[in-house]
Amino acid sequence: MINSPKKRVEVCFAPTQYELYRADYKICVVIDVLRATSAICTAVNNSTKILPVSTVEEARAYQKKGYLAAAERNGEIVEGFDIGNSPFAFMDPDLRQKTVVLTTTNGTKAINMAKDMDTVVIGALNNLDALCAWLIEQHEDTLLLGSGWKDKFNLEDTICAGAIADQLIKSGRFKAEEDSTIAAKYISRSARDNIFGYLKASSHRRRLKKLNLNEDILYCLTPNNLDCIPILKDGVIEKLTPEHVSQKA
Amino acid sequence: MINSPKKRVEVCFAPTQYELYRADYKICVVIDVLRATSAICTAVNNSTKILPVSTVEEARAYQKKGYLAAAERNGEIVEGFDIGNSPFAFMDPDLRQKTVVLTTTNGTKAINMAKDMDTVVIGALNNLDALCAWLIEQHEDTLLLGSGWKDKFNLEDTICAGAIADQLIKSGRFKAEEDSTIAAKYISRSARDNIFGYLKASSHRRRLKKLNLNEDILYCLTPNNLDCIPILKDGVIEKLTPEHVSQKA
Repeated sequence: MINSPKKRVEVCFAPTQYELYRADYKICVVIDVLRATSAICTAVNNSTKILPVSTVEEARAYQKKGYLAAAERNGEIVEGFDIGNSPFAFMDPDLRQKTVVLTTTNGTKAINMAKDMDTVVIGALNNLDALCAWLIEQHEDTLLLGSGWKDKFNLEDTICAGAIADQLIKSGRFKAEEDSTIAAKYISRSARDNIFGYLKASSHRRRLKKLNLNEDILYCLTPNNLDCIPILKDGVIEKLTPEHVSQKA
Repeated sequence: MINSPKKRVEVCFAPTQYELYRADYKICVVIDVLRATSAICTAVNNSTKILPVSTVEEARAYQKKGYLAAAERNGEIVEGFDIGNSPFAFMDPDLRQKTVVLTTTNGTKAINMAKDMDTVVIGALNNLDALCAWLIEQHEDTLLLGSGWKDKFNLEDTICAGAIADQLIKSGRFKAEEDSTIAAKYISRSARDNIFGYLKASSHRRRLKKLNLNEDILYCLTPNNLDCIPILKDGVIEKLTPEHVSQKA
């Protein structure tokens, strides 16, 4: 085991570059720190399942069929929906054991794009250490996919991806070859001790601040307040359990 | 003048994202540190003009018409050409007052992509301070376009773009809003004191090292050994002179 060859861990900044990076990875970690994947971790921790869809139209169609649905665009709850992508909304005990359809500006698009991978899991700062421990245990070629902001690079997803890459490389079982991974690692190290301050100037934080979402931002930038790993299975995101792993083996 | 509104300076990591970023910038700085734009700065400093073309076929067609031509792909000189994109080749006194057609893996593609901008200039670490002083004087919305490596993000172009953005913002006459610019600035600051060491792990340096191009790398990573500004005019890159500015005004 100790001498087994190193697997790759690489960072892809945004879905627009996914085709350039996807290659032969086995596991894809989708990251949208502000706020889709932080909300999904929170939901799954609350025993809620998430059905991610790319468009508001799809979410409405599910809503008509009687599903609970949540929709966010440009930081705001879409008209006709009760929930957007605030993690706090997904702490509601009434949502336990239920499935919520979710569409967001960036995150759910990235999740659906990554569906062709063997395994898709959801990463956020909230579940950072638990996710890293699991990824190290799996020891597979792993792609960390940032959701970006409207196809552009974003800072918070890169900080999270860089922190994951850093832990995996430090385990001695992974290596990185892409410049994007090296850059993400450096950025996450320099942000680590004060992520909130580091992101002060970031475009997305400014957007959310305008919408009075500082509470959400603080929550999403808190590492390791959750230890669940959301996994995509048959189109639905649920909490990873020992059964998922035994099914795989 | 002191109270005039700040102009934008932003970083676009690679040509694949150009369409997302291009917006209403007046000046585009094309950067391909290893090695196209470092070679172009060296050529222009040697009073050589460069005619950038995107494909090897175009370069061959010019060659048949009697032009001097240089072609590089994957770090190596293309068969049938005497010169690739090593800066040292462009120090040749025989090239003075001549025009050389040039095609490279990434840099010339980026230059041709940026042609729709009002003004296209060439940036490298070699002409960093001279270029920054000129850009500050122009005081126009400025896009810094990295050439990347085969459409992917690369570290050395980002370090150079970040260093330019940093100087422009420090002048008090520019501001940045994109996360890519904030990230590039941070990366360039942490690399600044030891760019060679910082790039040790970078993918492109590994590629060039295999080809025994360490001398080239050292040259390309030397800030401010040149003070010329190459500018694209009617499809040809030449040294910026006071006439260019007066023509514009």
